[in-house]
Amino acid sequence: MAGMLSQPAITPPPPFLYRDIISRAIREDLNHGDITTSCIIPAGQRATAVIVAKEPCVVAGVFVAKECFLSLDSKAEFLTEAREGSRVEAGGLLLECRGDCACLLAGERVALNFLQRMCGTATLASRFAQAVSGTGCRVVDTRKTTPGLRILEKYAVRTGGCFNHRFDLSDGILIKDNHIAACGGSVKEAVSRARVNAPHGLRIEVEVSSLPELEDALDAGAEAVLLDNMDCTELEEAVRYARDRKPGIILEASGGVTLENVRDIAKTGVDIVSTGSLTHSARAVDLSMRINS
Amino acid sequence: MAGMLSQPAITPPPPFLYRDIISRAIREDLNHGDITTSCIIPAGQRATAVIVAKEPCVVAGVFVAKECFLSLDSKAEFLTEAREGSRVEAGGLLLECRGDCACLLAGERVALNFLQRMCGTATLASRFAQAVSGTGCRVVDTRKTTPGLRILEKYAVRTGGCFNHRFDLSDGILIKDNHIAACGGSVKEAVSRARVNAPHGLRIEVEVSSLPELEDALDAGAEAVLLDNMDCTELEEAVRYARDRKPGIILEASGGVTLENVRDIAKTGVDIVSTGSLTHSARAVDLSMRINS
Amino acid sequence: MAGMLSQPAITPPPPFLYRDIISRAIREDLNHGDITTSCIIPAGQRATAVIVAKEPCVVAGVFVAKECFLSLDSKAEFLTEAREGSRVEAGGLLLECRGDCACLLAGERVALNFLQRMCGTATLASRFAQAVSGTGCRVVDTRKTTPGLRILEKYAVRTGGCFNHRFDLSDGILIKDNHIAACGGSVKEAVSRARVNAPHGLRIEVEVSSLPELEDALDAGAEAVLLDNMDCTELEEAVRYARDRKPGIILEASGGVTLENVRDIAKTGVDIVSTGSLTHSARAVDLSMRINS
Amino acid sequence: MAGMLSQPAITPPPPFLYRDIISRAIREDLNHGDITTSCIIPAGQRATAVIVAKEPCVVAGVFVAKECFLSLDSKAEFLTEAREGSRVEAGGLLLECRGDCACLLAGERVALNFLQRMCGTATLASRFAQAVSGTGCRVVDTRKTTPGLRILEKYAVRTGGCFNHRFDLSDGILIKDNHIAACGGSVKEAVSRARVNAPHGLRIEVEVSSLPELEDALDAGAEAVLLDNMDCTELEEAVRYARDRKPGIILEASGGVTLENVRDIAKTGVDIVSTGSLTHSARAVDLSMRINS
Amino acid sequence: MAGMLSQPAITPPPPFLYRDIISRAIREDLNHGDITTSCIIPAGQRATAVIVAKEPCVVAGVFVAKECFLSLDSKAEFLTEAREGSRVEAGGLLLECRGDCACLLAGERVALNFLQRMCGTATLASRFAQAVSGTGCRVVDTRKTTPGLRILEKYAVRTGGCFNHRFDLSDGILIKDNHIAACGGSVKEAVSRARVNAPHGLRIEVEVSSLPELEDALDAGAEAVLLDNMDCTELEEAVRYARDRKPGIILEASGGVTLENVRDIAKTGVDIVSTGSLTHSARAVDLSMRINS
Amino acid sequence: MAGMLSQPAITPPPPFLYRDIISRAIREDLNHGDITTSCIIPAGQRATAVIVAKEPCVVAGVFVAKECFLSLDSKAEFLTEAREGSRVEAGGLLLECRGDCACLLAGERVALNFLQRMCGTATLASRFAQAVSGTGCRVVDTRKTTPGLRILEKYAVRTGGCFNHRFDLSDGILIKDNHIAACGGSVKEAVSRARVNAPHGLRIEVEVSSLPELEDALDAGAEAVLLDNMDCTELEEAVRYARDRKPGIILEASGGVTLENVRDIAKTGVDIVSTGSLTHSARAVDLSMRINS
Repeated sequence: MAGMLSQPAITPPPPFLYRDIISRAIREDLNHGDITTSCIIPAGQRATAVIVAKEPCVVAGVFVAKECFLSLDSKAEFLTEAREGSRVEAGGLLLECRGDCACLLAGERVALNFLQRMCGTATLASRFAQAVSGTGCRVVDTRKTTPGLRILEKYAVRTGGCFNHRFDLSDGILIKDNHIAACGGSVKEAVSRARVNAPHGLRIEVEVSSLPELEDALDAGAEAVLLDNMDCTELEEAVRYARDRKPGIILEASGGVTLENVRDIAKTGVDIVSTGSLTHSARAVDLSMRINS
Repeated sequence: MAGMLSQPAITPPPPFLYRDIISRAIREDLNHGDITTSCIIPAGQRATAVIVAKEPCVVAGVFVAKECFLSLDSKAEFLTEAREGSRVEAGGLLLECRGDCACLLAGERVALNFLQRMCGTATLASRFAQAVSGTGCRVVDTRKTTPGLRILEKYAVRTGGCFNHRFDLSDGILIKDNHIAACGGSVKEAVSRARVNAPHGLRIEVEVSSLPELEDALDAGAEAVLLDNMDCTELEEAVRYARDRKPGIILEASGGVTLENVRDIAKTGVDIVSTGSLTHSARAVDLSMRINS
Repeated sequence: MAGMLSQPAITPPPPFLYRDIISRAIREDLNHGDITTSCIIPAGQRATAVIVAKEPCVVAGVFVAKECFLSLDSKAEFLTEAREGSRVEAGGLLLECRGDCACLLAGERVALNFLQRMCGTATLASRFAQAVSGTGCRVVDTRKTTPGLRILEKYAVRTGGCFNHRFDLSDGILIKDNHIAACGGSVKEAVSRARVNAPHGLRIEVEVSSLPELEDALDAGAEAVLLDNMDCTELEEAVRYARDRKPGIILEASGGVTLENVRDIAKTGVDIVSTGSLTHSARAVDLSMRINS
Repeated sequence: MAGMLSQPAITPPPPFLYRDIISRAIREDLNHGDITTSCIIPAGQRATAVIVAKEPCVVAGVFVAKECFLSLDSKAEFLTEAREGSRVEAGGLLLECRGDCACLLAGERVALNFLQRMCGTATLASRFAQAVSGTGCRVVDTRKTTPGLRILEKYAVRTGGCFNHRFDLSDGILIKDNHIAACGGSVKEAVSRARVNAPHGLRIEVEVSSLPELEDALDAGAEAVLLDNMDCTELEEAVRYARDRKPGIILEASGGVTLENVRDIAKTGVDIVSTGSLTHSARAVDLSMRINS
Repeated sequence: MAGMLSQPAITPPPPFLYRDIISRAIREDLNHGDITTSCIIPAGQRATAVIVAKEPCVVAGVFVAKECFLSLDSKAEFLTEAREGSRVEAGGLLLECRGDCACLLAGERVALNFLQRMCGTATLASRFAQAVSGTGCRVVDTRKTTPGLRILEKYAVRTGGCFNHRFDLSDGILIKDNHIAACGGSVKEAVSRARVNAPHGLRIEVEVSSLPELEDALDAGAEAVLLDNMDCTELEEAVRYARDRKPGIILEASGGVTLENVRDIAKTGVDIVSTGSLTHSARAVDLSMRINS
Repeated sequence: MAGMLSQPAITPPPPFLYRDIISRAIREDLNHGDITTSCIIPAGQRATAVIVAKEPCVVAGVFVAKECFLSLDSKAEFLTEAREGSRVEAGGLLLECRGDCACLLAGERVALNFLQRMCGTATLASRFAQAVSGTGCRVVDTRKTTPGLRILEKYAVRTGGCFNHRFDLSDGILIKDNHIAACGGSVKEAVSRARVNAPHGLRIEVEVSSLPELEDALDAGAEAVLLDNMDCTELEEAVRYARDRKPGIILEASGGVTLENVRDIAKTGVDIVSTGSLTHSARAVDLSMRINS
């Protein structure tokens, strides 16, 4: 897995895939109209809005904010925008937009709601990426994402310098304790069923929580192993054992990962550390929007 | 606003209003199928799943988890479930479900993704509610919710003992600095336009950040005032001034609210303290699901 | 409520909010294609269409008609269009459109179906507005709108010079006889429950049909009162009583309102007269479209 | 067309075809919840609701009202319901429903909005049907229906005893003046193009407004003719001429049809009289709902 | 039915009617992104793609392929495109497109999946059309189309030179054996019920499989007859009998139609031969796409 | 890949994933109603329908046909049904259903349209599976499926005894000639970029069409290789070379695969043979439905 060390590419998903998410969010907040704005702001008035950071952060999701404003005012123009993945300091400008004043006001909250979450995730990811830097180990996310926002959150993770685990239940095989339990407790049986039925493009990964289970998984033909909730000593032992028996195997550590301990985990020799905190508990970044007529 | 002090009612929204949210979330995670499970678990195998808390929390969203499983297995049955709004300790049971094993496995992650966020919000809300208990002041949420999940998050806020601010741009008038700026800086003009055009059922609330602005707002006929980013000394002065001039006015404080300072803010005499942190930065509660065949 | 007397602003809702309504209407009428037109009119033929009034009316919804044609021919151009809210005589031009001939023919009926209803509502509203002119009382609509078309109909009401009551069940509190009945007959209990649970931005309005009920409502703390089905003598008495006890209270009269009696009702001193006839029984205006090749 | 004289069958459309219409209507009115009801009515309280007519009418759409309540409370039960197509007097019962009190209150307005319009259309249709009774002529509707509600309105027309013209642009060929104009003014050319391209199951109907045009239409091979805006003398002449030349031809009169003149028109010998007023200008019937706990 | 002999017009359906089909197809194939392409191709790289035929075919659906690419890259440009209905040899160019390289790669398969099916249907249709050429008989399709793709397949049929039968259950009356069975076996009863209830624009067609049934159908007043599963001798007899009794009747033959026997069937004198094979069993044409950077 | 040889499990996809496909198909065919049936068949009449095969086939999709009928008549009951994957002879019964007569008639065509295609694919798949039986090689499908029906078609492939390749662009990495071209012609570069960015659960497969390209792919670290359009001699050589250099590599042959040559290809030692014909050109099986009142 030597090739896995570099930075991930920061390519936003195609608009085709997130436009509905934005439409729904605007509909949720706008309902039958922005009553305050429509009472106060005359039709046709134009304005400029700037979105600025009120604390340092890594930028992710400016294209989503733009799409929010474009949904309401298809002629909105963007004068300045921060580069995705760049670091912005407190007071830094993320986006400057000129358009219909009522539309800017109506889109403000939704645009910020997306942006502050995506920047929050990217910022946390950048700290994880930095924490393991140089160890040759990747930090990856999980499926513990916010329902409905996975494509944006997984993008934010990459933008911050971490990597993605499988996206959904269809594009990766991960045999967990519950599967094994449901399979009568036999790792061997579970792996062999997976080999018959799974498309050949998917590797078979098995979750284990002890050395004996690791041994079973390797016996059964696992191509990747998730070492769950082991401490660093156990991880080192597991890595040593697995590498001995099957040099090319992919090893992933998970469970109780924090910014504080991630480097130690990474140094046990695993290829990958996965943590749900990237997407389920990142703090929103504080952003604000100001209108200039 | 004396009547505002009691506990909010904990009534889940009608399923009609959140079923689509769940469907989309399942579709997002399931895509074209749970490849691991469909490879390993035979059709028709039945099992029992239990969801337990791995840390103390306030319960919110069990009905959402149930709906996740029912979407996949319309005959799933629920043997035990924690009461919404109740407190559960580490190890406590939130839900016990019997149904098709493959469906339980396929629905696990989505059910947990909803539940751990909703419980997280409710738990944080309960700490805020407790912090102001006895002061006669309410803590309310904002529109800084997760795009697409507002109805569930606002419910979780109530479940934890806090209250809701307006739900969306249609059901409340809040004239903020940006509106006033766009209106040529005149609070008076903004309020008077709102009075002409707004339905009579909506109160007119105005955001101010200084005493002179408060004075303007009261002059203009504001029926509620949001005191933004004032410290406790300023708040006390503002409350005194406003109550003198217009006894029935509703006063809301916002900006920089934390669990640490919320009681002091409440004690300044405002009716309401609002904080976005309830919905944008609550930490997910750690939950897990175990399958028993 | 002195500020309530002016004309409402005529701002069409953002296209984001009505595009789906138009799409569905076109799909309903077009189904798998305009078989007559596609059999007869060659692809690529261009034409000009004019929509004219066959009777005097107030214009509302030209933007909807335009969107109908644009849905089918994104390059359609509009050469002339009547101003929203303006009065057009028999023979007057509402819209002149140049585009693909087959698209104009296919869109004709749907465009007219919207336009003749919206103009019908605006025309009726303008007669109501004129009837109360100078009394300082507003005529407002109700939720008795055509299912699926509320946003357009409420807009047409404003275009004709009347005002909107609450839009939906979420953006206004109106405690009606059925609520009070379900609440054990106690207005007091109903109002006090509403005060605990409702967002602070919503006024609490209570429906009453007699003076004793009005007294109860005021005792309970109602902030607005709907005087239902009272004749003018009763209304005058109710207004006098309520203004004495609570000067700022908002008073609304409803029930059996017609163009003939609305001025008398307005002169009883109520702030608002509401009538469902604006939206549920307005006669469609007679319009026709002519194609010029 | 002798077989055309009987009563139409009153079969409601399959629920599959109107469920979405109801969902959207409920979503439109409910938005994020019935704030009044959810503040006041405890979860789980049960009640009975009755819908009664406040004026005589023909019943149409009770199944739609039922579906409204079922959407919100899937366990609602219906104790009594008026038969579709039956006549109900003032005070007569249309529907009695037992279910969750909050759901009955939340669904009331939408259920009534559908029902009062559908009964209005059916009632008007029954008057038209009665007016031509015994003449051997049918009254049919047009495509001048309310956008989004066509399937329900066309059903209400049948329920009142009138008949349906084509449903949409796909299921009938009607060559109108605009088509002929766009076709260079040649009826012959238009009809012959239609014969090449139209499926063989569709008759070709041509709109004419004078005898010479009627002659052209018959020359061209029209299989049905719409006699537009002719007075009774002209209609009689047209009928005589057409029956002479092509005995089996179907003749339809349209334009300026009212309850007053429809019988005279019918007696000119046309097979069909069509009128848009059935669907675009029927007055809503006055209905009300009462909750009994 | 003399006018029925010419070529059908090749007019693509309005984009309004097939855009959703394309969106769903892209979503189906793209899911959360083209993982191969997004890993390998840098954002912003441009390329040209050419789609060529690997075997001779009749072109149908190039506009669909274009829409596929435009869905992903709204700025894609089309440099060359084959004319709908034209014949292309092996190696012939169907479409040349310049745009974002990643979008071209992501859209390739879906564009080809549509195009190879539509060309397959058009190519088969052209062989059927040629087979009956000069006989004065039309070959038409049926409702045996691919679920979800009917509008595109029926278009492809016309593009190949055949004609369309009714599109769906709403726009044609065809009384089949199952209807007659359900109607107690009486053709007469079935036809007479249809005459009462059907809109006057629809002809009544009856399916028969023997001469006695044909006789019944004519007695009952059928306006078109489907002669099902008769051999050529029976067809000739049926045609003779029917033309004698009712000269203008439309006669359709169906059942067991192949490219080999269609001309003989056509020569029996029927107006129409219908065959489901056009849409349910056409072989996909072999096409390929090549990227040139 | 020894474990790959067994039969695939025949588990239908969860209804959650295909219900929309069926709804759309019914809407497509039903439009605003089955005009023939609603004219002729009285509401409430019940009947039994049987679907029988008119030629031998492998059964796939009976659950889809059932869902079609249930969509229209939620109380339809199924008396007999053929087992998925079983072989049925001409005249054999696939499904016997009792329910509302009008619903059975309205659903007939859509149910059959799905079923005849799915059985067609399963039947073809079973012939491919049999052709390679005993060789230790799998036949798999491709993404050349019918737009919108992939989940059903891929299921039908498994039901016939073949296997699935990746489902969509998200769940498998396949670097094809176009990717390599767009990547400047360097297999090495393409593979190494994929290794950086792809989730670790996906194997990297590379398409090659010559031995030198195979060599490059192996050098670059490909984990699976698609040998495109090679004849059996070339394939044998490629297999020998690849197995020598990298024993565990997965080898897939594609291009020009037919029932006639598939066994020879399988015997070259490749693990997998893929062919689009399974899904893009399977002939529909001849089925018919008969109503018994």
